[in-house]
Amino acid sequence: MLTVREFEAVAALHMDPVHYDYVAGGARDEVTVRANEDGFARLSLLPRVLRGSAQRDLSVTLFGARASMPVLMSPTAFHRLVCAEGEIATARAAARAGTIMIASMASTVAVGEVAAAARAAALDGDSDGDPALWFQLYLQPDLDDTIALIARATAAGCRALVVTVDSPVLGANERNQRNRFHDLPPGMACENLRNLRGDEPGNVRQIAMSPELSWEHIDWLREHTALPILLKGVLHPLDARIAVDHGVDGLLLSNHGGRQLDTVPATIDLLPEFVAAVDGSVPVLLDGGVRRGTDVVKALALGAAAVGVGRPIIWGLAAAGEQGATRVLELLREEVDHTVALCGARGLADLTPDLVRPAAGSRR
Amino acid sequence: MLTVREFEAVAALHMDPVHYDYVAGGARDEVTVRANEDGFARLSLLPRVLRGSAQRDLSVTLFGARASMPVLMSPTAFHRLVCAEGEIATARAAARAGTIMIASMASTVAVGEVAAAARAAALDGDSDGDPALWFQLYLQPDLDDTIALIARATAAGCRALVVTVDSPVLGANERNQRNRFHDLPPGMACENLRNLRGDEPGNVRQIAMSPELSWEHIDWLREHTALPILLKGVLHPLDARIAVDHGVDGLLLSNHGGRQLDTVPATIDLLPEFVAAVDGSVPVLLDGGVRRGTDVVKALALGAAAVGVGRPIIWGLAAAGEQGATRVLELLREEVDHTVALCGARGLADLTPDLVRPAAGSRR
Amino acid sequence: MLTVREFEAVAALHMDPVHYDYVAGGARDEVTVRANEDGFARLSLLPRVLRGSAQRDLSVTLFGARASMPVLMSPTAFHRLVCAEGEIATARAAARAGTIMIASMASTVAVGEVAAAARAAALDGDSDGDPALWFQLYLQPDLDDTIALIARATAAGCRALVVTVDSPVLGANERNQRNRFHDLPPGMACENLRNLRGDEPGNVRQIAMSPELSWEHIDWLREHTALPILLKGVLHPLDARIAVDHGVDGLLLSNHGGRQLDTVPATIDLLPEFVAAVDGSVPVLLDGGVRRGTDVVKALALGAAAVGVGRPIIWGLAAAGEQGATRVLELLREEVDHTVALCGARGLADLTPDLVRPAAGSRR
Amino acid sequence: MLTVREFEAVAALHMDPVHYDYVAGGARDEVTVRANEDGFARLSLLPRVLRGSAQRDLSVTLFGARASMPVLMSPTAFHRLVCAEGEIATARAAARAGTIMIASMASTVAVGEVAAAARAAALDGDSDGDPALWFQLYLQPDLDDTIALIARATAAGCRALVVTVDSPVLGANERNQRNRFHDLPPGMACENLRNLRGDEPGNVRQIAMSPELSWEHIDWLREHTALPILLKGVLHPLDARIAVDHGVDGLLLSNHGGRQLDTVPATIDLLPEFVAAVDGSVPVLLDGGVRRGTDVVKALALGAAAVGVGRPIIWGLAAAGEQGATRVLELLREEVDHTVALCGARGLADLTPDLVRPAAGSRR
Repeated sequence: MLTVREFEAVAALHMDPVHYDYVAGGARDEVTVRANEDGFARLSLLPRVLRGSAQRDLSVTLFGARASMPVLMSPTAFHRLVCAEGEIATARAAARAGTIMIASMASTVAVGEVAAAARAAALDGDSDGDPALWFQLYLQPDLDDTIALIARATAAGCRALVVTVDSPVLGANERNQRNRFHDLPPGMACENLRNLRGDEPGNVRQIAMSPELSWEHIDWLREHTALPILLKGVLHPLDARIAVDHGVDGLLLSNHGGRQLDTVPATIDLLPEFVAAVDGSVPVLLDGGVRRGTDVVKALALGAAAVGVGRPIIWGLAAAGEQGATRVLELLREEVDHTVALCGARGLADLTPDLVRPAAGSRR
Repeated sequence: MLTVREFEAVAALHMDPVHYDYVAGGARDEVTVRANEDGFARLSLLPRVLRGSAQRDLSVTLFGARASMPVLMSPTAFHRLVCAEGEIATARAAARAGTIMIASMASTVAVGEVAAAARAAALDGDSDGDPALWFQLYLQPDLDDTIALIARATAAGCRALVVTVDSPVLGANERNQRNRFHDLPPGMACENLRNLRGDEPGNVRQIAMSPELSWEHIDWLREHTALPILLKGVLHPLDARIAVDHGVDGLLLSNHGGRQLDTVPATIDLLPEFVAAVDGSVPVLLDGGVRRGTDVVKALALGAAAVGVGRPIIWGLAAAGEQGATRVLELLREEVDHTVALCGARGLADLTPDLVRPAAGSRR
Repeated sequence: MLTVREFEAVAALHMDPVHYDYVAGGARDEVTVRANEDGFARLSLLPRVLRGSAQRDLSVTLFGARASMPVLMSPTAFHRLVCAEGEIATARAAARAGTIMIASMASTVAVGEVAAAARAAALDGDSDGDPALWFQLYLQPDLDDTIALIARATAAGCRALVVTVDSPVLGANERNQRNRFHDLPPGMACENLRNLRGDEPGNVRQIAMSPELSWEHIDWLREHTALPILLKGVLHPLDARIAVDHGVDGLLLSNHGGRQLDTVPATIDLLPEFVAAVDGSVPVLLDGGVRRGTDVVKALALGAAAVGVGRPIIWGLAAAGEQGATRVLELLREEVDHTVALCGARGLADLTPDLVRPAAGSRR
Repeated sequence: MLTVREFEAVAALHMDPVHYDYVAGGARDEVTVRANEDGFARLSLLPRVLRGSAQRDLSVTLFGARASMPVLMSPTAFHRLVCAEGEIATARAAARAGTIMIASMASTVAVGEVAAAARAAALDGDSDGDPALWFQLYLQPDLDDTIALIARATAAGCRALVVTVDSPVLGANERNQRNRFHDLPPGMACENLRNLRGDEPGNVRQIAMSPELSWEHIDWLREHTALPILLKGVLHPLDARIAVDHGVDGLLLSNHGGRQLDTVPATIDLLPEFVAAVDGSVPVLLDGGVRRGTDVVKALALGAAAVGVGRPIIWGLAAAGEQGATRVLELLREEVDHTVALCGARGLADLTPDLVRPAAGSRR
């Protein structure tokens, strides 16, 4: 398989159609799902010439963690739906590639085991043996639950918290409704919520979402953890400013892969205005629709510090387990490097906004 | 059925194809019919985060009538074509949902009976027992006819008059011409025009349209009724200003579902300029192409006080009678509430214009 | 048949496929052929309300000739290819409809006979018995030939000369090349060039095109005829100004139905700038892509004094001879009148530029 | 065959599918391949009238070489893949047409033989017996290799060097990867690299690409040749300025037919800004997507001194050898002449930017 997109077709052959729909689908009419990929297609690259280098450093350092490339794993739920090893396999792939994994709170393997697998793999792999794992967090209305979750993530060695803020209620995936897909298959559960806070053994809590969450909760969180806090799902530039004012450490510009509110713009379309609002205060990451090295380079040129991929990792996992996820990451690495070279860039710092243009025939 | 659009397909199975064409069709090439839905697709939503509420008030109060949600029934003709109970069923659905029905002058049930059905249903339902029924009026060139019609609507308890001003002549529905659909089937008639002004018993007049109607007729109407007067079908911002100057109480921005002049813009495309022209003098309502909760929220964010739905109610009626119409309204209510939550809004007042953006790749 | 467009399909059934291609086709890739119709689709109408009239005068007076409607026949060649009576039938249809026919120099019936048929029909019909016939002229490099042609047209009673200036060379219709369609069938000829200037009896000259024609030829023509001179095929606003400076009486903004230079813009797209360049000095007419009454109204609102139709007349002729051409004209008249009424206009003078908007989703 | 595009279909019938893919394909998703043709489609021509000439001079003089038309052969590799005579046939076609051939360094016939064939053909043909051959050069990291290559080209009589600067690494043609097409068939080689610099007899070196090439190499080249130097593949306006500052003699605005970096804009879309950046300092040529005479005229009107064609020549060669290539050139010549005439131009100097407009409905 030569491209990331090919993995989806192969993955579909390996997956229960209901689970395929769960992963591929998005909110309502899936306008935003499609918009994310289309957004990159509406941008052109205008390369420079005669100023390149044979050695192109693709690494980024984020909150003290060095990633070997500017592509990280965005959080996605329920990896055991598509691969028996689940998040264990994913974590190994990330660690071997030397990149960051944002472990989902809705993981079918507990974060401690995920972290252990990552560390073991890192020792084998190219990284420095200290894999970068971050933890994606839904703030629970019962704050003691939240504290317990943070404690687990911290104990596991997670180096940052990525707080999802676009989910006051669950998005409406109509594919799931038609498929009557409401529960995980027997034997799978949100392991991070098992045996939480002295629950009776084996009990697994439901992830709660609350529309009552507010900026005060972010302030509260700030007081209850020393880890860097990133917010995932801020879209409005005014909220980006508010986030900075509340002292967050980073922002992951994301529309949840088009799974929450439908008809939200592609994240790449929002990026320039978002970056301008943040104005360098904190790093801005982006996910949504990244499928090609050119997509990564466009996002970086427009100001993203790194990009995340979600579904591509799942397709890789579903197609070939850990090796599939690894192959997806390596394809992206090769393409990013190739694109950087063809842009006449010696590294990521040369990816400046003037390299990106609206594609003719499109409109931003 | 999970979405409003699905009702159309089911309705088509239950309907005489000629009647289906009558409802689904529009003027000439149906450019405007399509434009109405497309207009919403050219808009994105840019939600806020961390400022929502578990209690979201969706109610609106218009001319003294409280509706439980900002979605009302726009006037549509001939409900008995698709459902034996006709407007009786529709009125019950509106009353049980606690929302406003604009009863069409071209009703196959007389407005008095429609109102009675609404009141009976309101006593059962969630509303306050006093359903809000408005009356859609074509001003008749014979003003004494108009007076008689107003008297009927007023006696029935209608709380506002919605005067259609986009019909100096009848629109050209070429589907009807091809189908030779010119008359209602035996046993159906425009019941509001039966036995008007001492006609011999059983006589039903034709609705007359006149290109000679002018703003003087609006002034005349103002003097002949104490009911609030809304104009339906004003599209040009200059006319919106004139309407305000003539003392109308509200405006329903509508292109008649694309059934009058073809190639008119989508109403949602006209809304911002229209709202600016009216400048808060009177409430602006909108209909045309509303199929999703996101459509409703976009219109409200851009300044509409409420939106109307037309064909969706007919699809509901045709698919499952009163229950179908109810289900359509409840789907929209659920979607509006869900969208409001995902926009980080505590209620309709939080739906501000900055939440709406032109969709990338489109042009307004 | 309810619409002009339907005539094309029916005409195709009646025509030799090679002749159908000749009429339907255009230059090269036929980009401009398609653009003409698409141009109207990129415009919306924004009607006024409550200011109409039951009596809508659609007549226009151009160079002393009154036409009962603002739709005239643009010149098209070789009517006998599609109908045995040829231009005789067309002329009768125009005269009975009381509108202007621009007789083509490339007519398969001599202009004298065409004019006689028009006069006879006008006596039967609604017009004043004095049909308006104009003559389309290709300036011949041999100016004596041109003088002879003008003399014929003048003797026939033509009231204006419409000089085609977009044809320094013949357009490249690749359908004709593929079909090897180079000559008229036996028994048909350009009758206006038969027996010209003492040629031996029966001789028919070829129409000559010359890239050497210049503005001096227009000045020369001005001195050799008292008839009003219109130029057909000026597209560039700078040339429109030059034409006015050379004293022409009118301009027919035309891209020759997309038959000369391919990739030229739709005429309706050029109209606003063209009208601004002419600035009221002379009437501007337009042809290209007019298929609906809304198209006519859009062109008039943007400043055209009248519009021409070309292929639609041929489709009418091919489908049903004179009656077909008549039906096409009457369909357009009905649609224009209907559109004027729905625009809240009392007549053509009310069709102002503010009634026209770029269609959302398109770009002009 | 009436059009250049038709040659592709015929060529495909004559070619090994793997070689067809090699020629037709481009980088990654081939966005830029398609963009090149689409770019011309997004432009309209707005012709002038009444100022033409029967004698239209289409010739251009570039760096002392007169070409009979403003269409030259851009460099393309491996002509023997599609025609046994390979570049011999191509060179004859160019010489007979009196136009410039840019011989590819990746030629399957050595440049000396190519030049000899061109001279022989020129003596037969319309040109002055002194055909214009330029040499396309990849600067080799081993500069002595580069010197040897320049010496060969100079000795062969090449009159300019066209240095490709968009290839720090090889583009990723995924069709080739799928087809496992990595090597030329037995019996074919890059003949310009055979027996270079005292290699043992028969040895053919690989063309090396290097991301380390820089503007200093251009300065070095300037000192090592007296031939005019053009750069091929500069896209960014800032680099165009730098190139001028480094004393290059011309620029060939090219995206390598979409074969290097994918998602680069169409060259015709970049041309106006590029020409403005160069500001007349040196001639700007363009290739990419030229298939019609109107394309050539649009490029010239927007400031290109001439345009190159690549794949069309290969399709001609594959379809009918030298005669096919000749026919492609002659079709383009006829179309350019025809378009110039229809634009009311007496020659290329009349092709001014005001003749070109964005096509309505598109966006640049």
